[in-house]
Amino acid sequence: MSTIGKVITCKAAVTYGPGEPLVIEEIQVEPPQALEIRVKITHTSLCHSDIHFWELKDGPILFPRIFGHEASGIVESVGELVTDFQPGDHVLPLFMGECTKCKNCKSRKTNACENYSPSGRPGLMSSDQRTRFSKDGKPIFHFLGTSTFSEYTVVEHGRLVKVNPLAPLDKICLLSCGVSTGLGATWNTAKVEAGSSVAIFGLGTVGLAVAEGARIAGASKIIGVDLNNEKLGKAKTFGITDFLNPSEYDKPISQGYGVCVLCGVVTDSTSVFSRHPVYFLGGRSLTGTLFGNFKGVTQLPNLVEKYMHKEFQLDEFVTHELPFSEINEAFRLLLDGKSLRCVLHVGNT
Amino acid sequence: MSTIGKVITCKAAVTYGPGEPLVIEEIQVEPPQALEIRVKITHTSLCHSDIHFWELKDGPILFPRIFGHEASGIVESVGELVTDFQPGDHVLPLFMGECTKCKNCKSRKTNACENYSPSGRPGLMSSDQRTRFSKDGKPIFHFLGTSTFSEYTVVEHGRLVKVNPLAPLDKICLLSCGVSTGLGATWNTAKVEAGSSVAIFGLGTVGLAVAEGARIAGASKIIGVDLNNEKLGKAKTFGITDFLNPSEYDKPISQGYGVCVLCGVVTDSTSVFSRHPVYFLGGRSLTGTLFGNFKGVTQLPNLVEKYMHKEFQLDEFVTHELPFSEINEAFRLLLDGKSLRCVLHVGNT
Ligand SMILES: [Zn+2]
Ligand SMILES: [Zn+2]
Ligand SMILES: [Zn+2]
Ligand SMILES: [Zn+2]
Repeated sequence: MSTIGKVITCKAAVTYGPGEPLVIEEIQVEPPQALEIRVKITHTSLCHSDIHFWELKDGPILFPRIFGHEASGIVESVGELVTDFQPGDHVLPLFMGECTKCKNCKSRKTNACENYSPSGRPGLMSSDQRTRFSKDGKPIFHFLGTSTFSEYTVVEHGRLVKVNPLAPLDKICLLSCGVSTGLGATWNTAKVEAGSSVAIFGLGTVGLAVAEGARIAGASKIIGVDLNNEKLGKAKTFGITDFLNPSEYDKPISQGYGVCVLCGVVTDSTSVFSRHPVYFLGGRSLTGTLFGNFKGVTQLPNLVEKYMHKEFQLDEFVTHELPFSEINEAFRLLLDGKSLRCVLHVGNT
Repeated sequence: MSTIGKVITCKAAVTYGPGEPLVIEEIQVEPPQALEIRVKITHTSLCHSDIHFWELKDGPILFPRIFGHEASGIVESVGELVTDFQPGDHVLPLFMGECTKCKNCKSRKTNACENYSPSGRPGLMSSDQRTRFSKDGKPIFHFLGTSTFSEYTVVEHGRLVKVNPLAPLDKICLLSCGVSTGLGATWNTAKVEAGSSVAIFGLGTVGLAVAEGARIAGASKIIGVDLNNEKLGKAKTFGITDFLNPSEYDKPISQGYGVCVLCGVVTDSTSVFSRHPVYFLGGRSLTGTLFGNFKGVTQLPNLVEKYMHKEFQLDEFVTHELPFSEINEAFRLLLDGKSLRCVLHVGNT
């Protein structure tokens, strides 16, 4: 019996307060509005940004809420004005959307779409400033426009990309955030050239994806820096040539010129980058990246194709797999630094 | 009668303490050592870096001292191992030297030569850790390896570049610091493209040279930002299309993405650039430049040729000319913001 046009009741992992364990609940998911798409999530993984925002105490109070933004799925139904997606399409949600029409989307220099930014309209859909999730009639807030910790989610048109249906959904979910961020930081932002030296601070999934990107770009020295010596084992898989633990040195380990790329979200509002301006005069530059400067709608299909042609390692980032119902265990693995990516099989619950 | 191999007695503007008026004195200048060159300075201008270091109270005590680094001159004699310069060559001194052999000189990504950095061995010549200047037998310290506030100076081999002898020395002196810094910040560091928007904070010589570089690069909008509305008049000459005085606005005037280039030296040791890291995630980057990332020895001859072919404005930066004896008046003009560049005719004293 078709679900198109109807409210779907399904399971979701709902968070009721900052840092509180997620609760698997039966919730209601409305049909998509005119320029929205309802997606059956097949797999979702966890990224540190989920943990950051889940723990965040000084942001706006948006609870109950459904987190999750690194995922893959299949289109269930589309809004009446959506012409380029149809039920059955394999898709990745995009927390960095791409309208393809705004000034920023038309610029080569940023991927910060003016219409689908990650920070815009937190928790609500933009067309009517409401949520599509509810439980017993009470609204449940969205997260980053994606909310993938749910069997079904509704996303705006610019926050979804259709990909090759032959690509394994349980792997390419990683391309909707962490691995793309690292590869893109290397290829799109730092533009690492053959023969370069690359230092990577922090060897989680993003850091190791930077290493993988640098290896492919032909970097001759890829230095992994982490406070945890256990990270070295996995690091070698991704081309790390040297490992440094700063706690074993009594002076700063940074020197020379180059470009420094900050990857990802820092939610601590008191964090400050501070340097004497002279620091920047000898060929050093500082920049950052969200989603590896990838434009999701136009560039992710090609990244999926590259994966299909084995042009980079992706499967190797999946260190754990669990059923969706064990999502709190996935949080614990990531918090304890035990996992790179734990893929949750949402369809299996 | 030849001066080669002999001590030269000549005039120099000597500073005896931080911020003290310069004193025109008769001093002694030794012959160049093996890899040094003695230069008759014909013209020197003043740059804010001279003023910064002249005023500097918390640096090492290096007085008496001869300041000056933006100048032009003619080779008087060369050390016994110098083969590529000879008496009569027209030259520019380089506070950012270029040995052409070190790792940094061979890299496209920095112009910070490891052997001739501006901060290395302050006040002394590297071969013997002595000075070539003295008065009545007492040493006078060098500055940035150039010390151009003197009728004769001695520089190390990597701190000098030979240029087209047809180029007017009273103009190209500006290419040994300020104007090159601005042009290079635009062309080499920011790599401004046709159609870009450029905002320039501070419309002194360096800022206006940035405007000139941006105009030539085809920038469509060149916004000059200065607290002094009087700067607008001259600014139009160099292609400024819009002028903003931040004191007339009640909110920050910066927005959007792009690259921010810090130009020149900040000597206040308490200056700190501070930003929340999130600031760098949307396509913004921060970098800086010394001498516009030009490699002086290999690139300045070409820049002089460009000037000879009228590919950029240079004469327009010379707002004042004075005899060397009036150097304190030149300091006053720059301190009061009355001049862009005041060229001192050293040969005329
Ligand atoms: Zn993420
Ligand atoms: Zn857009
Ligand atoms: Zn200067
Ligand atoms: Zn060098």
